[in-house]
Order: sequence, then structure tokens, then C-alpha cells
Amino acid sequence: MTGWRVIGLHHVAVAGDPDGTGEALFASLLGVPVHAEEGDGFTERMYDAGGPFLQTLEVTGDGVVQRFLDKRGPGLHHIALAVDRLDEALFDLEGRGVALIDRQPRPGGMGTHIAFLHPSAAGGVLIELVEDPGGGADRG
Amino acid sequence: MTGWRVIGLHHVAVAGDPDGTGEALFASLLGVPVHAEEGDGFTERMYDAGGPFLQTLEVTGDGVVQRFLDKRGPGLHHIALAVDRLDEALFDLEGRGVALIDRQPRPGGMGTHIAFLHPSAAGGVLIELVEDPGGGADRG
Repeated sequence: MTGWRVIGLHHVAVAGDPDGTGEALFASLLGVPVHAEEGDGFTERMYDAGGPFLQTLEVTGDGVVQRFLDKRGPGLHHIALAVDRLDEALFDLEGRGVALIDRQPRPGGMGTHIAFLHPSAAGGVLIELVEDPGGGADRG
Repeated sequence: MTGWRVIGLHHVAVAGDPDGTGEALFASLLGVPVHAEEGDGFTERMYDAGGPFLQTLEVTGDGVVQRFLDKRGPGLHHIALAVDRLDEALFDLEGRGVALIDRQPRPGGMGTHIAFLHPSAAGGVLIELVEDPGGGADRG
């Protein structure tokens, strides 16, 4: 591996149950969300989990989160690793034959750049890579 | 909530695929496991993910991990939150009607005390609480 590295865990994401049981417990355990943002068919909320975030994904319409819920039901959705150089990471991983969903960085929440690896690359685990130009990535 | 608090994220656990694809990628991204330990029907390995750990669970026989794989397939298994006082946490949560798998702490890996909440308490997410008498809990 050259030219980039994993800094740490950025967040763990949960695809929420429609009745909000999980959201209520996370708020009770971790306090109020430190950030909320609208995605394509979902609302994401970030809770501070002592460095990394716990992210909840609440469905607001059709999209990837609804499709996940249809297939797997509510529960853990993905983990996001903070990297220092996302362009380099994707170039390197693709060259090593790692299956990617996103071959180029795209905008993520909180001003970040993100890309997803395909779950087949990681034994069924959906992994997101996050680069935070604002420097927040190193809090993971 | 009185008498206890969540310190942070202790680890995220993955139920491994039998062919080891995930394990190989995690080792490539995060380096060598910092700890490995035998559980009841599984081997757990801990990778340093910049504070919290990524934990992989490899099946070695019948048990909870094999039953999870039979039901859900390989993928994200649970998240573990570090708490300062596990006894107090369980007493408080039970009093608030939160469904628990373990009503009393039991021994976990790396000298910790652990207890699991029932996934129904958290919208389908299996949550482990961890108290680390050795003080490692605050690294999460």
C-alpha cells in the first residue's frame, strides 16, 4: 500500500427501523445528534460516539437505504474508514483488484468526499472510505 | 440516566465469511491484529482502527456466530460501547424497560466485562456494553 493510509474509524451506520426504537435508544445513550443532513431518500444523523460517530439512516423515500431495508431489515448498514488521500486509495485498491462501488470520490455529508467498496470485497461488509478536507477525519 | 455513562465506541464486530476475504482486506487496511482470543465456537481478532477496534469473528464450531451466519450471512455483527460502570448500566437500562440478553456482566475478551442488549431494544442492532477494568475502555 503506497501513498495513502487508513487514519481510523470515521463512523458506523445503522439503517433505522421505521418505528424509531433504535434512534431513541442511541439518543438516550449518546446524547443529541451533532449533525443531521438530507441524503437521497434518507435523513442521516450523526451521534458522537467518543471520537467516531454513530450514524443513523432514516428513510424518507426510495433509495439505497430503503432497498437495504427491503433486503436485510433494520440493523447495521456500513462502516466508514477515514483515509488521508481518497484518490490514491481508490487508484491503489482498484489496481489490487478490490471491487469498488464508486471508482471516483463523490460528495458525502459534512463536507467530506466519500467512496464505497463493494461488500464482496470485504466478506459481506459494506465499507465506505471518507476523506475530510476540513480535517475532521482525524477525529476517528 | 444516572450513575453511569457511555465513554465511546469500543469495537465494531464482523461475522467473517468462511473464505477469509474480509479478514484479508481488514489486515491489508489496518495492519496485523493486535489481539486474538478463542471464544465459544469462534476466534475473535482485534484490529486497531484508530482508537476503537475492528473485531472479526471466525467460526470454529457451533455457537452464536455460526447461528448468526446461518440466519443473516457474513457481515456486520454488533457494535460495542465502552461504559464506565456496567453494573449500574444494566440496572438502569432494565429499570427503563430496555430488553437485555445479559442481565449480569460476564467475562469478555482482553480482561473486560461485557453484556449484550437485545437487538429489539435498538431497532435490530445488537449492542454490547463493555467495561474495561484495565482502563482500555477509554481508548474508544
